[in-house]
Amino acid sequence: MTDIQIAQSVKEKHIREIAEILNIPEKDLEYYGSNKAKLPLDLIDEKAVAKGNLILVTAITPTPAGEGKTTTSIGLGDALNLRNKKTVIVLREPSLGPVFGIKGGAAGGGWSQVIPMVDINLHFTGDFHAIEKANNLLAALIDNNIQSNSRNLGIDPRTVIWKRCMDMNDRGLRNIVAALGGKAGGIPRETGFNITAASEIMAILCLSKNLEDLQEKCGNIYIGNTWVGKPVYARDLRAEGAMTVLLKDAIKPNLVQTLEGNPAIIHGGPFANIAQGTNSILGTKMGLSLGDYVVTEAGFGADLGAEKFLNIKCRQAGLSPKAVVLVATIRALKYHGGNPIDQLTQEDVEALKAGMPNLERHVKSLQSFGIPVVVSVNAFSSDTDNEKNALLEHCKKLGVPAALSYGWAEGGKGCVDLADLVVEAAASCKTTFTPTYSLDDSIRTKMEKICSTIYGAKNVILTNKAIAQMKRFEKMGYGDLPVCIAKTQKSLSDDEKKLGRPENFNINIREFEIATGAGFIVPIAGNILRMPGLPATPSAEYISIDKNETITGLF
Amino acid sequence: MTDIQIAQSVKEKHIREIAEILNIPEKDLEYYGSNKAKLPLDLIDEKAVAKGNLILVTAITPTPAGEGKTTTSIGLGDALNLRNKKTVIVLREPSLGPVFGIKGGAAGGGWSQVIPMVDINLHFTGDFHAIEKANNLLAALIDNNIQSNSRNLGIDPRTVIWKRCMDMNDRGLRNIVAALGGKAGGIPRETGFNITAASEIMAILCLSKNLEDLQEKCGNIYIGNTWVGKPVYARDLRAEGAMTVLLKDAIKPNLVQTLEGNPAIIHGGPFANIAQGTNSILGTKMGLSLGDYVVTEAGFGADLGAEKFLNIKCRQAGLSPKAVVLVATIRALKYHGGNPIDQLTQEDVEALKAGMPNLERHVKSLQSFGIPVVVSVNAFSSDTDNEKNALLEHCKKLGVPAALSYGWAEGGKGCVDLADLVVEAAASCKTTFTPTYSLDDSIRTKMEKICSTIYGAKNVILTNKAIAQMKRFEKMGYGDLPVCIAKTQKSLSDDEKKLGRPENFNINIREFEIATGAGFIVPIAGNILRMPGLPATPSAEYISIDKNETITGLF
Repeated sequence: MTDIQIAQSVKEKHIREIAEILNIPEKDLEYYGSNKAKLPLDLIDEKAVAKGNLILVTAITPTPAGEGKTTTSIGLGDALNLRNKKTVIVLREPSLGPVFGIKGGAAGGGWSQVIPMVDINLHFTGDFHAIEKANNLLAALIDNNIQSNSRNLGIDPRTVIWKRCMDMNDRGLRNIVAALGGKAGGIPRETGFNITAASEIMAILCLSKNLEDLQEKCGNIYIGNTWVGKPVYARDLRAEGAMTVLLKDAIKPNLVQTLEGNPAIIHGGPFANIAQGTNSILGTKMGLSLGDYVVTEAGFGADLGAEKFLNIKCRQAGLSPKAVVLVATIRALKYHGGNPIDQLTQEDVEALKAGMPNLERHVKSLQSFGIPVVVSVNAFSSDTDNEKNALLEHCKKLGVPAALSYGWAEGGKGCVDLADLVVEAAASCKTTFTPTYSLDDSIRTKMEKICSTIYGAKNVILTNKAIAQMKRFEKMGYGDLPVCIAKTQKSLSDDEKKLGRPENFNINIREFEIATGAGFIVPIAGNILRMPGLPATPSAEYISIDKNETITGLF
Repeated sequence: MTDIQIAQSVKEKHIREIAEILNIPEKDLEYYGSNKAKLPLDLIDEKAVAKGNLILVTAITPTPAGEGKTTTSIGLGDALNLRNKKTVIVLREPSLGPVFGIKGGAAGGGWSQVIPMVDINLHFTGDFHAIEKANNLLAALIDNNIQSNSRNLGIDPRTVIWKRCMDMNDRGLRNIVAALGGKAGGIPRETGFNITAASEIMAILCLSKNLEDLQEKCGNIYIGNTWVGKPVYARDLRAEGAMTVLLKDAIKPNLVQTLEGNPAIIHGGPFANIAQGTNSILGTKMGLSLGDYVVTEAGFGADLGAEKFLNIKCRQAGLSPKAVVLVATIRALKYHGGNPIDQLTQEDVEALKAGMPNLERHVKSLQSFGIPVVVSVNAFSSDTDNEKNALLEHCKKLGVPAALSYGWAEGGKGCVDLADLVVEAAASCKTTFTPTYSLDDSIRTKMEKICSTIYGAKNVILTNKAIAQMKRFEKMGYGDLPVCIAKTQKSLSDDEKKLGRPENFNINIREFEIATGAGFIVPIAGNILRMPGLPATPSAEYISIDKNETITGLF
């Protein structure tokens, strides 16, 4: 059965019933149909948040074989509920654009899914659309100010870094010249579009404490300079109020359900390289307010996702996970061990062992935060007993608890072993996490600490351009911001070809960006694609709907 | 009191109660919060549609003084309900973009409003966003096919007429060069953005009978030519299925309420020059299925809005209004009579009389359809008794029933006189409307009939370019499509400076466009702005929201 067939074979509960599990009064539900609801922010209870068990799911370095982080998160959440732990799964919202590129959604898989999967992958409750409008309103106000405005700020159009955004895989919008057509069209300038998930507004929404904080952060966005080199912020354009009005509903977390009828909150989805790669702070706090356990995930591998989850999101929110689950698959480890993608279904214990240093490195990195780590081996039918035993044996040697999980094939009941280890780990956790760096560290020191402690790199090498930018940001007063390193997810190093556990490498920072609204500095190590394109055969060509609203070709 | 203060002073009913008035079972409601719901298409009952009383509200030639067509529609609907006629008001969805340009919403005014006005003017139920995505998916597929696609259609990029769209007043996007940045960015070409209301997808959604029809129409969109001059349609790109999936919820009409707690359906909002300028066929049919009367409106003056409502929408849908209400104001007539905008609040019966020929012309045009016409004088506090009497006297001479209406100041009870005339007119109507032209007429004849019968023009003059295009469209087999003339709304002629009732003028058709998906040919008489800009002082600068979600500066 395909994911969509499985999803359609399950009788969906009315979202009212899901809310009842969490003791949410019906009057507080803002329905979006019968299977989705927005939750008001006043349901957040900081006391409950402080007491809750936050469980982070992260992964080894991603490979084309797929790791199944979301599937594991959902399976683990369902398993915890089977073990009578009141658990809310809190995840990112998928982006619409990629749906029309390569077939496949982003709401888990097999028997560990969140539903309604079609809606979640399409417009959902409109959060991405609202973010897009807020982003693009700011862009329109910038060009309007350049063209003719009663409060002319003297913006130098050559310096404007704020781009428009669209939730569509559209490479033609990456680089454009806008405002053509003569006087009425504005002052022509080079610019472009990001996909909406890469908008700073997305990062801001996911780091905001409330509406006022959101408005302030929107105002703090740096957009470019005046002709005399003075920085211009969104607040100088008086843009933040209208932007926040556009986001007034998007800021509220969305309640849905798993296939097993357990509550799931899906809210926000920023990129995991140029941004923090994890759902909103408000989504996580909502989950902790309503349940005793929250299972959540962070994008890409632990080097990018978990590091930013902890050092950026948790630090800002005052959150600390009780345990971290590191997801690995036997197939992916064999890939890290050097086997090609088409040979991963054949037993190869040697290749598996050769790939283990990647897992080891991530375990070590995660242990640097001082909180318990559990390894979850997301099982595939091609995995052999020899391989499973070798992997579990290795984890035992490392002293890290590990369990096989069968979320895809069995849902929650396939993940109870993992759930038991997680409960044990969380109960043993008596401390909050130790950040990798202090906010008082210099920008360079912050990067060095991440690169050595988390990536296992030797040094950080900066171009002259990067050094000049770093100095400028420090001079502007942004030296105390956290850093959000943009690096390939395919390797612990900055070279995507270096699989497994690279050694003796440096991290090369080509340049910096700054997100003064979201509140972090982005050192760029590599090429970051912020607007994907469509493949030669876009999945859109095979999508159809009939008069009964039955959709084919989507997943 | 401002519109928003009035709106906030009224206790909103739960949308469930509004549905109950119309005997809609709760299971059929797809809630969007407690005050909005989408309605499933199977509530449409063609038998009820055929029996219903459809009332069209249109207006004299618009002036900067404002006519109050929406306010009159809502007031009239509320008044019919006061008279125990089960009435549904069916209106267009306002566009988001203009909200950030000039202060003011588009959901009626005073005591004749539809609510929730903030939501209706912002994201509402996401219909515009969905249309935008469908439009832009097609654009992405076009550039993807030009760049590299497994089924290369050989599209000549210079011929692509399909533009992207965005619901934002952003002049910088009117004319752009896209796909820059080298090989990875695509094949550079000139293009641009329309505001979403001007997208052909909007016109299509509003003319579709059901999902299948929508899918077929999307497939029929003409996007450009191949290098050898062969027309390329969206279906050649296999785009229509995915586009329709994106529109699966947007096709469902939205139920809201008036301030007096009467049902209103708000669905779709195409431009009234390059498109049909009226809400969806499905919205109108839904209203007629659920109520005995439907009050609806068409954009701009009767020359554009009513003509297209009848000859395009009603003809395609098999609908026929029982009466047409022509809205005029004493201020607007004085403006047509030659008075400047700042002198309209002073009594001036002579100026009023001098402006009357505009109203006369519209009455005559509307009477050509063979259905009853009623004049509604939307009253302002500055109107004097002398002026009111002169106007009513004049209508009496014309033999057309007329009533003063006070929807803005009094809501429904201010419009009962008008409602009584409308009920009487509808009861007297024993026929369906006579179209201005036959679909079998040549394109030129269609234009000539509209220009003489509706605008009162002498001739239609075509440029050589227009003649060549017209011949090409006829050759392509599109000669039997209706025509949708794009002309200034500010004059009956094609010269916006000619107020009142211009005489001895020609209509000059510069060029044609074709909307093969929506199914009409667009003769262009004048400059049509499809992407507005922001003014020198955008209203966005004054919009704000506080922690209690109270919004200021929006209306």
